[in-house]
Amino acid sequence: MSGSTGVGNVPRQQQTSGGRRGGGRGRKGGRRSREVFRASESQHPQKKDASDDQQDLKSPPPACTDFDVAYFEAYAHIGIHEEMIKDHVRTEAYRDAVMQHQSFIQGKVVVDVGCGTGILSIFCAQAGAKRVYAVDASAIAVQAKEVVKANNLAETVIVLHGRVEDVEIDEQVDVIISEWMGYTLLYESMLGSVITARDRWLKHGGLILPCTATLYLAPITHPDRYNDSIDFWRNVYGIDMSAMLPVAKQCAFEEPCVETITGENVLTWPHVVKHVDCYTIQLNELESISTRYKFQSMMRAPLHGFAFWFDVEFSGPANSSIITPSQSPLIGISDDDPVDDIPTKKRTNLNEPLVLSTAPEDPPTHWQQTLIYLYDPIEVEQDQIIEGSVTLSQSKENRRFMNIHLQYSSGGRSFVKESVFR
Amino acid sequence: MSGSTGVGNVPRQQQTSGGRRGGGRGRKGGRRSREVFRASESQHPQKKDASDDQQDLKSPPPACTDFDVAYFEAYAHIGIHEEMIKDHVRTEAYRDAVMQHQSFIQGKVVVDVGCGTGILSIFCAQAGAKRVYAVDASAIAVQAKEVVKANNLAETVIVLHGRVEDVEIDEQVDVIISEWMGYTLLYESMLGSVITARDRWLKHGGLILPCTATLYLAPITHPDRYNDSIDFWRNVYGIDMSAMLPVAKQCAFEEPCVETITGENVLTWPHVVKHVDCYTIQLNELESISTRYKFQSMMRAPLHGFAFWFDVEFSGPANSSIITPSQSPLIGISDDDPVDDIPTKKRTNLNEPLVLSTAPEDPPTHWQQTLIYLYDPIEVEQDQIIEGSVTLSQSKENRRFMNIHLQYSSGGRSFVKESVFR
Repeated sequence: MSGSTGVGNVPRQQQTSGGRRGGGRGRKGGRRSREVFRASESQHPQKKDASDDQQDLKSPPPACTDFDVAYFEAYAHIGIHEEMIKDHVRTEAYRDAVMQHQSFIQGKVVVDVGCGTGILSIFCAQAGAKRVYAVDASAIAVQAKEVVKANNLAETVIVLHGRVEDVEIDEQVDVIISEWMGYTLLYESMLGSVITARDRWLKHGGLILPCTATLYLAPITHPDRYNDSIDFWRNVYGIDMSAMLPVAKQCAFEEPCVETITGENVLTWPHVVKHVDCYTIQLNELESISTRYKFQSMMRAPLHGFAFWFDVEFSGPANSSIITPSQSPLIGISDDDPVDDIPTKKRTNLNEPLVLSTAPEDPPTHWQQTLIYLYDPIEVEQDQIIEGSVTLSQSKENRRFMNIHLQYSSGGRSFVKESVFR
Repeated sequence: MSGSTGVGNVPRQQQTSGGRRGGGRGRKGGRRSREVFRASESQHPQKKDASDDQQDLKSPPPACTDFDVAYFEAYAHIGIHEEMIKDHVRTEAYRDAVMQHQSFIQGKVVVDVGCGTGILSIFCAQAGAKRVYAVDASAIAVQAKEVVKANNLAETVIVLHGRVEDVEIDEQVDVIISEWMGYTLLYESMLGSVITARDRWLKHGGLILPCTATLYLAPITHPDRYNDSIDFWRNVYGIDMSAMLPVAKQCAFEEPCVETITGENVLTWPHVVKHVDCYTIQLNELESISTRYKFQSMMRAPLHGFAFWFDVEFSGPANSSIITPSQSPLIGISDDDPVDDIPTKKRTNLNEPLVLSTAPEDPPTHWQQTLIYLYDPIEVEQDQIIEGSVTLSQSKENRRFMNIHLQYSSGGRSFVKESVFR
């Protein structure tokens, strides 16, 4: 019943060339780093067969795999939390969201899914919550408990060390707060835990923060970055190293790159890959997401690849409704939906929902953007069509990994790029 | 005979919190990154039992372990070579060294140990070498061969894809060139391959580039870095997170950190941990290196830890002699060797040996410095003595890892710090 998801199996680990280059080398941490999910022969202090403490005979929680254990262990390292907290765009958006919904939170019961150090739980307690359940499967929960106690909030904030699938909360909750977003929004698959918490505990009419999330895709040009890794080989100290070009192209960009670009790198308005309504989304919708896109380049430039980014909104349940891609205000052109009116997504008054954005034109966050580079750039003219499809799916190897299947055509030529975001 | 080094055994891999924080995240590469050595269940296209092709019944080459395979695979990734070549301090030092010894190299036979893309071999060919054997066990050798061919040097540069322990060269060589230095000089254990090449092929009176290497240790102060990771937790958005301090101290600096510091961070002249004469050093000397040190702080400052760095010299064999620590010009004070005369190690004329330095006061390199931070800083006064011992030893888990045992005393208190450089 639980063995099918691989408990006890040690998946083959990919060899990689390892760390990140640059100034940060040697400092531990790195939130949502892809390294954290590369489970191998871990020790399993937390691992248990899900059937051991099965709570609901009709729908036992999914088993905790070796990869999950590695994932939880990674979040036990303080550096990850340090980086997240130091991302002021992120942390202030959450704090502002809590304060904006203070009237709803006051006197209510909250659950914080994946509480980490407990900072969001404490924000909610400060906003007047009656009780906050701070849940985390990582050993960081031990520290969260200490922090709560040191701030004299032990009466209000109850830290539960375990998965939301496994812990017991003996009441329904009014509010779910969670900072679940991974690179490319869905990498890490932590949204599933929010869905689980919602289905287990959220009252009808309750509040989920954030309430919606939108993943975008856009074609990009990035000559400096491309040349830095590729054209570099044409002349190395006077030596012709062009023989390295094929392998350089293959190596440099075979995996998705988490990097910061700016609005100037983006060739068109983005396409909505997925709009997530946290009130209604179901677990099975996350297994595979497919969309067709059609862009019209706004300039003449070499197309070097595509960028993903996302934003999340912190409005109340009343503001949340399922926006289909064709209704989205920020969408690339498609046959049935030409771009004619591009509204801003910035708040213009306090009644508009608060947005945490990781877009290239917004202040950078630790999520940066996720880039898929092409083997060879395509020279596109102004107004040239770039079209194709993208499929994001949970890897069979580890559901926290993401397979990215990108098909793209322009100027009469078509290509397919497969990447795995490990 | 070969099994004892662990062929076929999969050592338990350590879980880590993963990647590096900062701007470089997501870009692959990272030379000498510690990630590269974390072997796990790798596939073994190159692995073979050393006894299969034993060349010398008296001293068979050491077996190629799983960790070695992972090491060679890591160097197949082009990003590592890109970073090394783009380290101009490094690459120009080698090019200058070849040019400085051009009269010796002309018409001679060279072996390049761990040739990578082949750039040092090509420098030697350009300097007039009769023949260059470019040896690398990583698949990068395939590209090196292409580069050599594209530069019309296939007659001169013979690329051999294999370990120096395993490949056959049917003549003695005049010159060994190798860029074998890892973080903390000896991390990676690649010097062993140079020793093997020397003992197998180098003619009497031959040239080794570089000829000597010196590893230094010095106490450092680094308040910004320490506060950034530790004191940060005292007040996080108005929340008292001091409860995180013990784990923050434990997590932030439990492993050696590869970071760039400047001369201003260094409290005293350095101590020579090890001087390596590449002509005479033996493999067994690298297994464990111990030294006692005694520093006298030049200022009042918090002692945050210790830094390692190294330099290598490119003089000819005539200039190379074993310098014992007590003869070294750049040494911290010790009971029998007070600091009285500190010469510069910069070249003042062309007859002085060319030095590639990774010292804090010199231009930064991709090796940066290796820092061992203390759990709690020690406030030292000017002239206060800091003394103790350090032992660097090859890990039993993987000889390319390094155990660092650091004992330090100051102001009447003594501490021991154990770190593993994985």
